Amino acid sequence: MASSSSCSTCTLHRGLFVRKEIKNCNGVLMFNDKSFSVSANLAQSRLVVPNQKLMKWNQTQNFSLKNPIKCRALEVDNVPSFTVGNKFQLDDVIEAQQFDRDILNAIFEVAHEMEKIEKNSSGSQILKGYLMATLFYEPSTRTRLSFESAMKRLGGEVLTTENAREFSSAAKGETLEDTIRTVEGYSDIIVMRHFESGAARRAATSAGIPIINAGDGPGQHPTQALLDVYTIEREIGKLDGTKVGLVGDLANGRTVRSLAYLLAKYQDVKIYFVSPDVVKMKADDIKEYLTSEGVEWEESADLMEVASKCDVVYQTRIQRERFGERTDLYKEARGKYIVDRDILRVMQKHAVVMHPLPRLDEIAVDVDADPRAAYFRQAKNGLYIRMALLKLLLVGW
Amino acid sequence: MASSSSCSTCTLHRGLFVRKEIKNCNGVLMFNDKSFSVSANLAQSRLVVPNQKLMKWNQTQNFSLKNPIKCRALEVDNVPSFTVGNKFQLDDVIEAQQFDRDILNAIFEVAHEMEKIEKNSSGSQILKGYLMATLFYEPSTRTRLSFESAMKRLGGEVLTTENAREFSSAAKGETLEDTIRTVEGYSDIIVMRHFESGAARRAATSAGIPIINAGDGPGQHPTQALLDVYTIEREIGKLDGTKVGLVGDLANGRTVRSLAYLLAKYQDVKIYFVSPDVVKMKADDIKEYLTSEGVEWEESADLMEVASKCDVVYQTRIQRERFGERTDLYKEARGKYIVDRDILRVMQKHAVVMHPLPRLDEIAVDVDADPRAAYFRQAKNGLYIRMALLKLLLVGW
Amino acid sequence: MASSSSCSTCTLHRGLFVRKEIKNCNGVLMFNDKSFSVSANLAQSRLVVPNQKLMKWNQTQNFSLKNPIKCRALEVDNVPSFTVGNKFQLDDVIEAQQFDRDILNAIFEVAHEMEKIEKNSSGSQILKGYLMATLFYEPSTRTRLSFESAMKRLGGEVLTTENAREFSSAAKGETLEDTIRTVEGYSDIIVMRHFESGAARRAATSAGIPIINAGDGPGQHPTQALLDVYTIEREIGKLDGTKVGLVGDLANGRTVRSLAYLLAKYQDVKIYFVSPDVVKMKADDIKEYLTSEGVEWEESADLMEVASKCDVVYQTRIQRERFGERTDLYKEARGKYIVDRDILRVMQKHAVVMHPLPRLDEIAVDVDADPRAAYFRQAKNGLYIRMALLKLLLVGW
Repeated sequence: MASSSSCSTCTLHRGLFVRKEIKNCNGVLMFNDKSFSVSANLAQSRLVVPNQKLMKWNQTQNFSLKNPIKCRALEVDNVPSFTVGNKFQLDDVIEAQQFDRDILNAIFEVAHEMEKIEKNSSGSQILKGYLMATLFYEPSTRTRLSFESAMKRLGGEVLTTENAREFSSAAKGETLEDTIRTVEGYSDIIVMRHFESGAARRAATSAGIPIINAGDGPGQHPTQALLDVYTIEREIGKLDGTKVGLVGDLANGRTVRSLAYLLAKYQDVKIYFVSPDVVKMKADDIKEYLTSEGVEWEESADLMEVASKCDVVYQTRIQRERFGERTDLYKEARGKYIVDRDILRVMQKHAVVMHPLPRLDEIAVDVDADPRAAYFRQAKNGLYIRMALLKLLLVGW
Repeated sequence: MASSSSCSTCTLHRGLFVRKEIKNCNGVLMFNDKSFSVSANLAQSRLVVPNQKLMKWNQTQNFSLKNPIKCRALEVDNVPSFTVGNKFQLDDVIEAQQFDRDILNAIFEVAHEMEKIEKNSSGSQILKGYLMATLFYEPSTRTRLSFESAMKRLGGEVLTTENAREFSSAAKGETLEDTIRTVEGYSDIIVMRHFESGAARRAATSAGIPIINAGDGPGQHPTQALLDVYTIEREIGKLDGTKVGLVGDLANGRTVRSLAYLLAKYQDVKIYFVSPDVVKMKADDIKEYLTSEGVEWEESADLMEVASKCDVVYQTRIQRERFGERTDLYKEARGKYIVDRDILRVMQKHAVVMHPLPRLDEIAVDVDADPRAAYFRQAKNGLYIRMALLKLLLVGW
Repeated sequence: MASSSSCSTCTLHRGLFVRKEIKNCNGVLMFNDKSFSVSANLAQSRLVVPNQKLMKWNQTQNFSLKNPIKCRALEVDNVPSFTVGNKFQLDDVIEAQQFDRDILNAIFEVAHEMEKIEKNSSGSQILKGYLMATLFYEPSTRTRLSFESAMKRLGGEVLTTENAREFSSAAKGETLEDTIRTVEGYSDIIVMRHFESGAARRAATSAGIPIINAGDGPGQHPTQALLDVYTIEREIGKLDGTKVGLVGDLANGRTVRSLAYLLAKYQDVKIYFVSPDVVKMKADDIKEYLTSEGVEWEESADLMEVASKCDVVYQTRIQRERFGERTDLYKEARGKYIVDRDILRVMQKHAVVMHPLPRLDEIAVDVDADPRAAYFRQAKNGLYIRMALLKLLLVGW
């Protein structure tokens, strides 16, 4: 039970965030950056104060997070992240790119445990005493409820802001950074949705407690990407070697871009793009990245053929607001690729239909009754992924 | 404590919902419809998984609720609902018509227990681990707070949506059914207020967890009707033989129609209608129903005389929004029947004044101090009724 | 542990609220006014029913709070408030003027305990089973979150209304008094923000449970005033003999007026007023009061000089909305007194910069890194003060 005073550090692959965590002789953790940390099995011990509590303490003591007392002698870079016996702890969830395959596996393992916890009617107390603030500058009832349910299913408590943009001191001109520094005094973790790309990263830089990005404008929505990949693994039973058809609005949907990005981390994945011309995925976008990562992809205009070959048909909504006054173009695009019983007929038995929801008519309602309609199970998986992230961010592995 | 594997079914009187519940040899409950069930004393045992949890499990397993595996050999229709030793369990609360006298009595008995629980400052844990979602497509702070208080007084947790219409994916065109199927993944029960008549029933048909109708447009507001009848019983000491004056806007108020409907279930009830001409109860409305049920009723233009004879003067607000630009008619109607100290003077000692609130000036403020002013106690009874319903829907009798 | 049946009363100094509390032979407390009470150490005993529970009971029994059964023989006025062994209990928090130095000290002592409780990650259960309603007729995310965090950090539960003005029955014309009498049926304490001066006092008069004023229009915001004074004591280590510079909008800011009012209760305080001419503190305002209380004050146009002499530089935001169309005046006023690194350079080592937040550019962002920037710690102190008040109002000392 006694916490060791050894030093553990970690570096992520592929030039992503690098983070070192050093435990000095006085048992105080110090950081020189934030993203995630290998902390041996310290986090399992109730004797170890969680990260954010420490950081709050640091702030109170007027220590700047930007200039921690460094302990250079103890720093060891380029040690493998997940040696035997080591567990990791997340610090923030900002963008899909921050996760490598090992972290994804670890999150999915915890999410799978969460399915059992959620079904236990007596309720978990894993996060008892923890307080989550949902700071939504843009409304998203579905995402907010999913996070709040996740927190409460684990025994935690929630402070809600349903429409921070209109109601908060933001209207008086306060910066996001100031808002975050105030709200972090009232909570242990902040789940944030914002209308500006990059807002979550700015918040994480200011905050001494963990930040989860619940969508920042046209930017990132990493928990959606995680739940999508988790759903494929749960429904198909594997990720390596899967064939995924991405259908609908590929020009504007951040969902499909993040999903394609994460799928590239797995072996022998094949991606099909099926979209009306006006909302085609742009050439200079994720396609170049996929090629560079050796992921096979092709474009197709034939949904029927793609559906017959895929493990996953991932349908998305054509967003009216992207068309402005060109309602003629919108109507044409919207009706082009519908998943209906004809599509189901050609799909393989083990294959599934996914959709980030809400849907309009791009999936016919009579598809719902088919066992391969996975979209409501997918929405439910969002709960398990968010439970897993909250646990990992607040109490660690 | 071991749960038996016997089979119990139930049919409601008067052509209302019929519901059968069969427990097969493997201990799994199956349904062919939803409304309420006789479940012996199964629900009292902690070994029995609550309905909605089972139904959630069914969904995960791709079982359609519409086509359950039936166990015809075990079905027994037309068995009396409440034989000795049998208790009931509610599945949804959709409309006042679903309750018969026996169910009303049972709900009121539980509500009365709730008065004691609420006064106990240490708090109850009956619903610990349960999560209620309040999905309000139309604002109603009073009703929402009452439900949320009820849930929390019983140790349960709440996910709130104060303005689902404006903020949710409904704005993007999602159907109510899809919203419900998503939200049921995050909660154990949904309390819903909607602007469309019939919305609650549609939601209940889609949902695998209990739905409570907290008002659907001009349609139903069954918990208001229940708390009104409960208040009469608590204040007057009986329901059979009571004389009730319904005063004010009888043309538009769903409250008075639902109350009249429920009162018809009791013996020797007499109802007086007192309303300005422009908001008179329509002939083809509840009056025909009352006559067919043998309930005595009369219309009167003399509030003073009615007040002197009644056990209950049930005052309602004249709703300005019903008059459009005819503010002259509104003003005339609004001032016509005021409950004031003159009315109190003619009322009997044991009689009470009720009002669904909010009130404007249809009850004078100086009436509040009179012990017969029951409207704030009536509002409080809403808490007890909602506590009772939440208990009955989530853990049974 | 047994509660005595003795009688304790209390009168406040300086013509403020007078309140008597008498415990009669049957163990029932009676009141003839509300503000705060000396209750020996009754409140510490779990055998004693908290005030509001009793009052709720009284209402149920149709006792009017306005006409309590009086026990004149037992009333003793003008007994010193805080004799040895006596503790106090607050009934409502309405305005800064209700607190004298002894009460302030007591609140600060409890607030200081709360710092330890909040840092304890397992969470406190002091207010378990208590329910707080936040009734905000005017949005204030910061204040609302602070109160809700305070309640939850102590194990209590919250009913939230983010925008009561627009959503509640107030829109239908219900009086504040009626709303309060309904909401008090659902909760144990009401935290209220309103757009009308005096609304909190009206609510407290109607309510049988404690009311906390979280700001009523241009009127009072007593918890802000308390946290400001508490912050000075925590940062400077004392209140007697402090020199405080009040900077910015002194004409419209209720914050600075309340702070000046409370500071007048301490010895040898000196206050400097530094503000642009258009938002100068008016002559007939707090200045006369300070003079009458023997508090030294002076006006200055030289922020640099004041900063070099003060223990506290209390900066405030120039509120654009006060200038109407005179944006030229606003711009001139806004740029005049900025706290930046030049000001820090002349400030003493032990001195601090405070601000009620939100800030725009009246404090330069690069001031944040200086240990003397106390404004985020000040915001955090709001949490401790509110925790202390909730504890004192609900369970007493």
